[in-house]
Amino acid sequence: MISVAEATRLVAATVRPLGTELLSLPLAAGRLLREDLRADRDFPPFNRVAMDGVALRYEALAAGQREFFIEATQFAGQPPVTAPNPTAAVEIMTGAVLPAELDTVIRYEDLTFRTDEVGQRYATVQALPPRPGHNVHARAADRRQGDLLLPVGTRLKPAEMAVAATVGAATVAVARRPRLAVVSTGDELVPISEQPAAHQIRRSNGLMLQAAAWQAGAEAEAFHFDDDPAALRQGLPALLAGYDAVVLSGGVSMGKADFLPEILQELGVEQLFHGVAQRPGKPFWFGARAGGAVVFALPGNPVSTFVNFYRYVQPWLRAVQQPNGAAAAGSGPVPAVLTAPVDFKPAMTHFLLVSLEPGPDGRLLATPERAGGSGDMASLLTSSAFLELPPETSYFPAGTVLPVWRFR
Amino acid sequence: MISVAEATRLVAATVRPLGTELLSLPLAAGRLLREDLRADRDFPPFNRVAMDGVALRYEALAAGQREFFIEATQFAGQPPVTAPNPTAAVEIMTGAVLPAELDTVIRYEDLTFRTDEVGQRYATVQALPPRPGHNVHARAADRRQGDLLLPVGTRLKPAEMAVAATVGAATVAVARRPRLAVVSTGDELVPISEQPAAHQIRRSNGLMLQAAAWQAGAEAEAFHFDDDPAALRQGLPALLAGYDAVVLSGGVSMGKADFLPEILQELGVEQLFHGVAQRPGKPFWFGARAGGAVVFALPGNPVSTFVNFYRYVQPWLRAVQQPNGAAAAGSGPVPAVLTAPVDFKPAMTHFLLVSLEPGPDGRLLATPERAGGSGDMASLLTSSAFLELPPETSYFPAGTVLPVWRFR
Repeated sequence: MISVAEATRLVAATVRPLGTELLSLPLAAGRLLREDLRADRDFPPFNRVAMDGVALRYEALAAGQREFFIEATQFAGQPPVTAPNPTAAVEIMTGAVLPAELDTVIRYEDLTFRTDEVGQRYATVQALPPRPGHNVHARAADRRQGDLLLPVGTRLKPAEMAVAATVGAATVAVARRPRLAVVSTGDELVPISEQPAAHQIRRSNGLMLQAAAWQAGAEAEAFHFDDDPAALRQGLPALLAGYDAVVLSGGVSMGKADFLPEILQELGVEQLFHGVAQRPGKPFWFGARAGGAVVFALPGNPVSTFVNFYRYVQPWLRAVQQPNGAAAAGSGPVPAVLTAPVDFKPAMTHFLLVSLEPGPDGRLLATPERAGGSGDMASLLTSSAFLELPPETSYFPAGTVLPVWRFR
Repeated sequence: MISVAEATRLVAATVRPLGTELLSLPLAAGRLLREDLRADRDFPPFNRVAMDGVALRYEALAAGQREFFIEATQFAGQPPVTAPNPTAAVEIMTGAVLPAELDTVIRYEDLTFRTDEVGQRYATVQALPPRPGHNVHARAADRRQGDLLLPVGTRLKPAEMAVAATVGAATVAVARRPRLAVVSTGDELVPISEQPAAHQIRRSNGLMLQAAAWQAGAEAEAFHFDDDPAALRQGLPALLAGYDAVVLSGGVSMGKADFLPEILQELGVEQLFHGVAQRPGKPFWFGARAGGAVVFALPGNPVSTFVNFYRYVQPWLRAVQQPNGAAAAGSGPVPAVLTAPVDFKPAMTHFLLVSLEPGPDGRLLATPERAGGSGDMASLLTSSAFLELPPETSYFPAGTVLPVWRFR
């Protein structure tokens, strides 16, 4: 039996970056970039007017001029007008290019207008701007042409999509989605649509794992095998060849019917560990097949399956989407404050279901869930995360700060 | 100009629950339930064996017996065996039904086995269990038949999918997805794949809003109109009739080219407000058409668009998926601690871009982003949330706890 730290290390060592695919930008939402995206122009690309109003020379204001003849109008999307008259102004709209001769914009709220007898308009400045360049978003103020904006490995979230669109990345190179086969095993499991006999239950882990994999950006298909060695020997090879990872639930505890590790090794999956000093989820078996899938064989109790998925499988799914297989930023645990004391004697890592709530002082508070053990699926509904209690300590007073893995 | 609180109230007042659709459970992942799901059986439905090992009578152990004759084997998925012999045991697997006569399970790790000359196996208990019922997950220990497990309005996340599967909800009634039309306006905007002229920029807000809407569980299609009243008058009616909400970016500031509010009112969209005492995003226009779409017309600066989406549109999208249109749990802001002082004089709500980081004591720390104003799209890349600074105060010292809206 190995430690959680060692299991984490062995899982991470199997990470190989997935292939790259070219996608039209809208289809790439949520994917991880496999290329650097740089500014093709300055940000902004021109002196951009930031308010509707009039553009003028600050110098004229500084010299005492307050009323300005409107010599032209400049809309967004038009080439800039010329503004040769040093005492005139240009009525101008947000997003327009500031004419080259002008340097300052006064917004409508700070102006009054009059029209003379021949229809000519004049604007009078009511509130002086603090400096030249007021209400102008200067060319290259934010980023310069050639600046690296979205490095390889960036996930394309809404803000990143906007930036990619701005630099003209109509097609982008991104990591393909990881492909997961989710396999439930166990003779006691019947399909969702069937009425179980008294000694049976419906299949639920497969759908739980599928939904969790979808949330992590993976493709996931569900399969089921009864506890039948022949069926497993026949069905598993296609999954091991066709998927990046196979996640099995059930079939790895110590019992007589648990022949799965043996069959996996027969099929060329090298065992990397079996048993992790943790509760729940101790019988976790992990292996990899040369040139093929990795196999996460998880104990079948719903809480064990769930915790192992978020603690090991999800970080793996994120890492394989990185170009270098590194752990993805933001996918690890965050610190939270325990609100009630916890006593856990065994020399194991304890994954403790908690509900999270922000405290009034901005601290993240973790309250242990009253759970009925690793079979208590309903306890997952009322909790939102699990704390990782290290094996060296057995008593954790209220107020202890501990890493928490969120699953909501 | 109205306050942020008043704008929030007026937006919430337009929420009407979306229609319901029946979906096969796997397709309903991420949706909000429109029916209560109750336990169709007890949780667990029988006295469920929680460890591989042997099942026996605690009474026999209490009477001093240590070695037990193995009279049968009981696998998961089989009807329970009968165990009439008061001094015998049943070898038993995780997930199996505990035979009616037995009450306690000793796991393999706490047993030794021997086989006699006629092949009969015996188990000797090495570590006594603390009480009857050890390693048995008792029937109804977690939930009782008829208990409400997933009330109307619950979002089907992975744990909820597992519970829905367990109770046999092969088809579920869920809210349909909100349908959003995302409309960019502005003559200065060219398609992503085109090379903009010096005074043009590429369309980016539309894709940003689409990606953000997808993340919020909505369907979103993107449209573009130039600043052409005729085109808007022709194109907008189909969007107002065919979508639940129309989100426009650009076209609502004070300038001469900003005729959008007028056209919207011509098309039967009643203005509910125009202008909110906030920065950025002040020119926000909001309206609703009787029996049709609501219209969020947002100022076109990327940061304004972005902040208004997460502050107003996303909560609306979540609320219409609720059966009663109530604000969805967990969709509001959380408290965070300002790490540097902020001075903001105008009597307006200030939405301040920040990066969030958990502090070592479990507090969520918000560090203001050095942003170039509402046009600085690149500042969205390095921030992950925005603080909401109330209008009554102008100086916020480091350490102030404020509500923060996350967008990552």
